Amino acid sequence: MGSALLSDLGTEIVIPVCAVIGIVFSLVQWFIVSRVKVSSEHAESSPSSKNGKNGYNDYLIEEEEGINDHNVVAKCADIQNAISEGATSFLFTEYQYVGIFMIAFAILIFLFLGSVEGFSTKILSGFLGMKIATYANARTTLEARKGVGKAFIVAFRSGAVMGFLLAANGLLVLYITINLFKLYYGDDWEGLFEAITGYGLGGSSMALFGRVGGGIYTKAADVGADLVGKVERNIPEDDPRNPAVIADNVGDNVGDIAGMGSDLFGSYAESSCAALVVASISSFGMTHDFTAMLYPLLISSMGILVCLITTLFATDFFEIKAVKEIEPALKKQLIISTVLMTAGVAIVTWTCLPSSFTIFNFGVQKVVKNWQLFLCVCVGLWAGLIIGFVTEYYTSNAYSPVQAVADSCRTGAATNVIFGLALGYQSVIIPIFAIAISIFVSFTFAAMYGIAVAALGMLSTIATGLAIDAYGPISDNAGGIAEMAGMSHRIRERTDALDAAGNTTAAIGKGFAIGSAALVSLALFGAFVSRAEISTVDVLTPKVFIGLIVGAMLPYWFSAMTMKSVGSAALKMVEEVRRQFNTIPGLLEGHTKPDYATCVKISTDASIKEMIPPGALVMLTPLIVGTFFGVETLSGVLAGSLVSGVQVAISASNTGGAWDNAKKYIEAGASEHARTLGPKGSEPHKAAVIGDTIGDPLKDTSGPSLNILIKLMAVESLVFAPFFATHGGLLFKI
Amino acid sequence: MGSALLSDLGTEIVIPVCAVIGIVFSLVQWFIVSRVKVSSEHAESSPSSKNGKNGYNDYLIEEEEGINDHNVVAKCADIQNAISEGATSFLFTEYQYVGIFMIAFAILIFLFLGSVEGFSTKILSGFLGMKIATYANARTTLEARKGVGKAFIVAFRSGAVMGFLLAANGLLVLYITINLFKLYYGDDWEGLFEAITGYGLGGSSMALFGRVGGGIYTKAADVGADLVGKVERNIPEDDPRNPAVIADNVGDNVGDIAGMGSDLFGSYAESSCAALVVASISSFGMTHDFTAMLYPLLISSMGILVCLITTLFATDFFEIKAVKEIEPALKKQLIISTVLMTAGVAIVTWTCLPSSFTIFNFGVQKVVKNWQLFLCVCVGLWAGLIIGFVTEYYTSNAYSPVQAVADSCRTGAATNVIFGLALGYQSVIIPIFAIAISIFVSFTFAAMYGIAVAALGMLSTIATGLAIDAYGPISDNAGGIAEMAGMSHRIRERTDALDAAGNTTAAIGKGFAIGSAALVSLALFGAFVSRAEISTVDVLTPKVFIGLIVGAMLPYWFSAMTMKSVGSAALKMVEEVRRQFNTIPGLLEGHTKPDYATCVKISTDASIKEMIPPGALVMLTPLIVGTFFGVETLSGVLAGSLVSGVQVAISASNTGGAWDNAKKYIEAGASEHARTLGPKGSEPHKAAVIGDTIGDPLKDTSGPSLNILIKLMAVESLVFAPFFATHGGLLFKI
Repeated sequence: MGSALLSDLGTEIVIPVCAVIGIVFSLVQWFIVSRVKVSSEHAESSPSSKNGKNGYNDYLIEEEEGINDHNVVAKCADIQNAISEGATSFLFTEYQYVGIFMIAFAILIFLFLGSVEGFSTKILSGFLGMKIATYANARTTLEARKGVGKAFIVAFRSGAVMGFLLAANGLLVLYITINLFKLYYGDDWEGLFEAITGYGLGGSSMALFGRVGGGIYTKAADVGADLVGKVERNIPEDDPRNPAVIADNVGDNVGDIAGMGSDLFGSYAESSCAALVVASISSFGMTHDFTAMLYPLLISSMGILVCLITTLFATDFFEIKAVKEIEPALKKQLIISTVLMTAGVAIVTWTCLPSSFTIFNFGVQKVVKNWQLFLCVCVGLWAGLIIGFVTEYYTSNAYSPVQAVADSCRTGAATNVIFGLALGYQSVIIPIFAIAISIFVSFTFAAMYGIAVAALGMLSTIATGLAIDAYGPISDNAGGIAEMAGMSHRIRERTDALDAAGNTTAAIGKGFAIGSAALVSLALFGAFVSRAEISTVDVLTPKVFIGLIVGAMLPYWFSAMTMKSVGSAALKMVEEVRRQFNTIPGLLEGHTKPDYATCVKISTDASIKEMIPPGALVMLTPLIVGTFFGVETLSGVLAGSLVSGVQVAISASNTGGAWDNAKKYIEAGASEHARTLGPKGSEPHKAAVIGDTIGDPLKDTSGPSLNILIKLMAVESLVFAPFFATHGGLLFKI
Repeated sequence: MGSALLSDLGTEIVIPVCAVIGIVFSLVQWFIVSRVKVSSEHAESSPSSKNGKNGYNDYLIEEEEGINDHNVVAKCADIQNAISEGATSFLFTEYQYVGIFMIAFAILIFLFLGSVEGFSTKILSGFLGMKIATYANARTTLEARKGVGKAFIVAFRSGAVMGFLLAANGLLVLYITINLFKLYYGDDWEGLFEAITGYGLGGSSMALFGRVGGGIYTKAADVGADLVGKVERNIPEDDPRNPAVIADNVGDNVGDIAGMGSDLFGSYAESSCAALVVASISSFGMTHDFTAMLYPLLISSMGILVCLITTLFATDFFEIKAVKEIEPALKKQLIISTVLMTAGVAIVTWTCLPSSFTIFNFGVQKVVKNWQLFLCVCVGLWAGLIIGFVTEYYTSNAYSPVQAVADSCRTGAATNVIFGLALGYQSVIIPIFAIAISIFVSFTFAAMYGIAVAALGMLSTIATGLAIDAYGPISDNAGGIAEMAGMSHRIRERTDALDAAGNTTAAIGKGFAIGSAALVSLALFGAFVSRAEISTVDVLTPKVFIGLIVGAMLPYWFSAMTMKSVGSAALKMVEEVRRQFNTIPGLLEGHTKPDYATCVKISTDASIKEMIPPGALVMLTPLIVGTFFGVETLSGVLAGSLVSGVQVAISASNTGGAWDNAKKYIEAGASEHARTLGPKGSEPHKAAVIGDTIGDPLKDTSGPSLNILIKLMAVESLVFAPFFATHGGLLFKI
């Protein structure tokens, strides 16, 4: 057993430094994005100025002819303000409820466990990420007037702000929490890191609101706006006359950006916590080797540096000149970050870990070499890349699967849906093999510690992942703003091209999110089993098997709830939009402005209300099963919902992504084949629009929400494990 | 330990007598159905006469005015012949391939196990069932002219012929096989009943061809006919000018009737075999108590008698007078058979079983009381009823779920699909709880023997179940024949009403099929684990967990394959139909007859060819996993595919059933609400048609095929268990 090269003091310095670098970098990106507003000559105008007119003129004259009028710019600024206000209003309402929820849940934990574990409300980073995202939208639109390359960079940089803030902030807060808890717990590291699990629970509870509430919000607004606008009134998408259009754009921010952010943040927090809990009872945990102990945080620190370099490749080292270069550029980001991170993991592993150490898991002790742990992290990292590529293959319209779906629109919406569903099912195969191999390798080498660090490996490039992911909704919003501000057709085409790539990257982000969620919840499941002192979870006992089959059913129950929630929230939106069209004179003619705020309020209220049934299902299932049926059945439920939920989530998000891009493929008409299916308004295009609408709740609400289901149930079980182990299984005791 | 009341000799007599009663009863029903053709005055005309004109006239004059012309009747006979020929031709082609497959598989088993286990090709009953079904179609149409009641009874009786033939034939063949094997094995009952597992494997292999091949056939023809006929040429469904129309009707027979029959037959054979294998090493197996040993067969014998009485309630004791009485009548069948069977099970249990006995399972011995085994059978029986009711609730247009789906058509096809999918997901909840409770109760009382007899309990009313199920496609065909023969609108309305109830009963049948498949494959899984000498299947080992997650993925892979198979087979059909419309002059005007035979041949060939990839997935997975990864991983795969496949299958078949009936709800316009959505051709109706088309492959191909996936993998693993246990897991050995 060699000791680590990096001293404890070094660790204490390296981690916060890396976090601060990440935060500074994101602020620099923010500054660059905000400069869009400022003309080269009039740099004195404040970036946070609410008046969009200042200083645009000179700059724009050189870039795009004909639209350098104050009117368009003013409109952009107006729209941005409306979106920003809507998003903020949603966030505040949501956080109010989060507050109530946290208090109620804390009381529950207190009642069950007799002690309150700390919640760290990760509200700040979610809030900041969203603010910057809404801020970036209008800027992307304005940049789109200067050609694809610039607009791409703005959208990407804006995504990067979000990504780096989240990753760095998450790391910093966790680091500070550990150091604060150390003051209280002293040398009781087992107690210290068990208390840290509250951080994970907090992260996931927040994600419940972000993903599920946000997911319902975004699709209620989107579907509601489309149903009345496109279907009934026959006005184009994102038309400013549609009262729900601002709510729709707000939804892109709160659902796709804040939701994804909170989800990945939750995974990051939970996998770190799971790794730390297991590590606290390892040989280096017992000898109080602080550097080795904080290995998970050091991996994340390295991840921030790697992602920083990776981002420079997209924004500074190369320039995007044409639409078709966007997707390869984003793909390159994935490859570069993974390759660099592999080297980074090697450096961290050989400088921070002893050459061999012992972990204790499920009552057995296991000697782990440092190269084995290196492989555990790498297998997660590379599995992430594979999932990313497969997702890209199945959802990008550059490849045959989406083109085949588009082609099936020839024979109508029904064949489009059948082929789309089949594509989603098929897209599950390779990711599941990738996840299975990661699990096998990391489990074999280092049991649950291996699984936890594999999850961390997949999430180590989270900053790049989030940048790529957030880029999608930002571009989507940009297109909306361009339409609303009445910009020229050419600009809308550019933002559409950005958006098509964004759909693919959003699907890639969802692939990462579900892949890491699977590993994380397995790690949490392992930690739960350890803590509940179960030695085996034998499928051949009735208690476990019924848990397994009922657990496998939960993703369906949950999806049915979230899909219906979108439906009823959308219906409320439809009624309001219809009401406005019918009662506000001159609205359809464009003489009067619609009442955007009421639509925003409806989406906000409906999403919070509709979140209750699925939220209750997630929160109550472990409590009920654990209390009445005991830890064995609960283990079955966790395993069942994990293995079944992963499939439903991947297939739902890829099916939705494919439909969206099949529609965009027909609309863009970039190839001979695509042109035979178009143009907009043709029968195949109409069929494609139907598929796209079906895909909306699948890919943005019910699919990604399943990550929360599997993670939150696992972390909640972990927190309540001591109670269930002693008092659970009431029904069998009687 | 009391000994059984029924002597061994009694058992030897009772079982074949019950089987013969079942066969005789089905022949009586057949005779009654065939009498439709014969007028009261001209009873001398042969029932098997191919010339449909004979003797109709007098009879019909009294029943329906205006359509007593020779022309209509002749057309009916013509169409029936064409359908019958098509079905026979498919069956012979299929059986050819089954023959090749069986030889190849026997060689494989020989290579792996060194001894060939017997296959009992259950071809006869499938063939007979199908013949009677095609025979019944035209008769139902003719009866529809005499009002709903008569037509219902004919359709139902025809279904009963199929049900009773299958149940009785299955029982008789199994009984004879056991007695023949007894001559060879003598007192080695363990060897005897292990050899009997070949019967189960044979039953399931046949079901692979019936369900998967038949499923592809029926939907390729259906979707292909609709896409060109309804969409491109704008001619009504079942129009005789459509060249694929006969193939479509053949498909209803080979897919929905023969497929379902072979599936349920497989379940029946496998659960009997699983129960017998476990029983052979029980205390009564060792003391050679033949009556107790054959308890599973005695339950089935009682089932035939109970179903016989139940059938009389539908055909003789009550009369159906109105359309709305059809569904309650079918529901009553379920209730009556379940209540009577509960008493029947009690009688069999207390007369045939010792008051307590010992079973040996997973290395432990367990004392089972006879009342406990009674409860095991009953819990399966009643779970079947609950699954039936829940399925009815979610797929019948008499209840709010389907009405809500129909209502969602107002806002277009997209909302219809979203609500339909959500309905399917939701419909999974209660059946899974019912299955879980059955598993828990029967597993706790009598381990795997309990599971096997619970499955048998669910299948004990198979004759009634099949009668109800086969009634659906028979009515569907009847409607087709009415349309093709140019009968009046009123007759078509009647067959449509029969068909709407048929969609619900078909969904109920599918619910039974999947529920019993789940129990059966669990029983087989248990037998596999025993035979492979595994003591625990611990989820917390990497080998098992990767098996679990990959197993949970298999239903998606399999569904993607079957859905794509339908797609490509349908495409071939589309091309042929287009070719005929383009090259045969006067076809669209109705002057020339289309070339039906070529379409039938295309469906036949395509279904056999397209069956290969999904078939290979099912057959090769256990072999590959067992050989390279060993029995633990294979256990994981079996458990994963079981718990995940059940959900996919139930949701797919209920979603499809709901869409079909939502469409019928709008078309029928029976309520104020329904009339606001219609009539045929309205926008909501068009949206409903899209949903219906999407549902076709879900409910008739990919959904039900999953039963085969989970059962066949389990029974194959069981057969190869000794090989895997000694030579498996090559990859881990290296």
